[in-house]
Amino acid sequence: MTRPERLDPQAIDAALAALPGWTLHAGKLRLERRFADFSEAWGFMSRVALLAEAMNHHPEWTNVWSRVTIDLTTHDAGGLTRLDVELATKISRLLG
Amino acid sequence: MTRPERLDPQAIDAALAALPGWTLHAGKLRLERRFADFSEAWGFMSRVALLAEAMNHHPEWTNVWSRVTIDLTTHDAGGLTRLDVELATKISRLLG
Amino acid sequence: MTRPERLDPQAIDAALAALPGWTLHAGKLRLERRFADFSEAWGFMSRVALLAEAMNHHPEWTNVWSRVTIDLTTHDAGGLTRLDVELATKISRLLG
Amino acid sequence: MTRPERLDPQAIDAALAALPGWTLHAGKLRLERRFADFSEAWGFMSRVALLAEAMNHHPEWTNVWSRVTIDLTTHDAGGLTRLDVELATKISRLLG
Repeated sequence: MTRPERLDPQAIDAALAALPGWTLHAGKLRLERRFADFSEAWGFMSRVALLAEAMNHHPEWTNVWSRVTIDLTTHDAGGLTRLDVELATKISRLLG
Repeated sequence: MTRPERLDPQAIDAALAALPGWTLHAGKLRLERRFADFSEAWGFMSRVALLAEAMNHHPEWTNVWSRVTIDLTTHDAGGLTRLDVELATKISRLLG
Repeated sequence: MTRPERLDPQAIDAALAALPGWTLHAGKLRLERRFADFSEAWGFMSRVALLAEAMNHHPEWTNVWSRVTIDLTTHDAGGLTRLDVELATKISRLLG
Repeated sequence: MTRPERLDPQAIDAALAALPGWTLHAGKLRLERRFADFSEAWGFMSRVALLAEAMNHHPEWTNVWSRVTIDLTTHDAGGLTRLDVELATKISRLLG
């Protein structure tokens, strides 16, 4: 498998424009969401886990009760790649 | 902890009337649901698992891709008890 | 993606010989496992869910507290294919 | 339910002595674990989620592929309580 290339700033801007709710934070794609409670947050996380494993591309993520913070980056490339945009897009679809 | 007592037929009828979508199947409370895909089904199951463990009362359940079938009974009591009605009520709340 | 072909009886026998604990049940690959409790069963199921979604090949499975029964078949092919053998092999690896 | 009281320093020291692998980090009980891969980390997290929901006491936790970091504190009490020690003890039991 070819290692994906880092996106240039224009490509990152274009990606963010198509990903409502996501921001650039310390060079990573970040989503912060608050759910009704831990159960709803965990149901979401359980679906994100499936997406991540299927892509073999995994988030850095934190959960505190009803809050979930997801940071995406491609460690092998040292920055954002199309893998991060693809995973972010799939995660956003879960949120309807 | 006192072992819960079996519900009598009138109590079961009353419970079913308050639990849309649930039926009596082989003496157990049954719910069958079809979701959009495996991911949505699994997100639901992950939340049911939390409910079940918190109550220490667990379902007999089957999943085939987008379908989930849940059967509730209280083995210790040899039939339906208030625990089954309580878990069914909580599961229904997840489904909105 | 090419639809996988059904395995012939010799290939199924060879697969079963390499899959300790799996049996042929109603034409499907079956594994039955008993864990220490629901938590341990659920931890296992959570990992099987990742495998299944990553392969886009999902089990028919049932859980009753500490017991998990997994049946594998390829509905599109009307029988067992290499996908079932591959998923069974990966599931067995989880069990060490 | 009575709000649990904060543990005094001696009680915290005694708790840490009985919790190998846990440290005090910014006033919270911390466990950092590295697993073989995301799947193994996720299987562990799925079991911790059950423990947390059953206790109605939830961790602050972060996952990055095979690594899981868990921080425990009791927000309502503004520090560590017996709930944190109890959850840490249960989590450690999962790790054998």
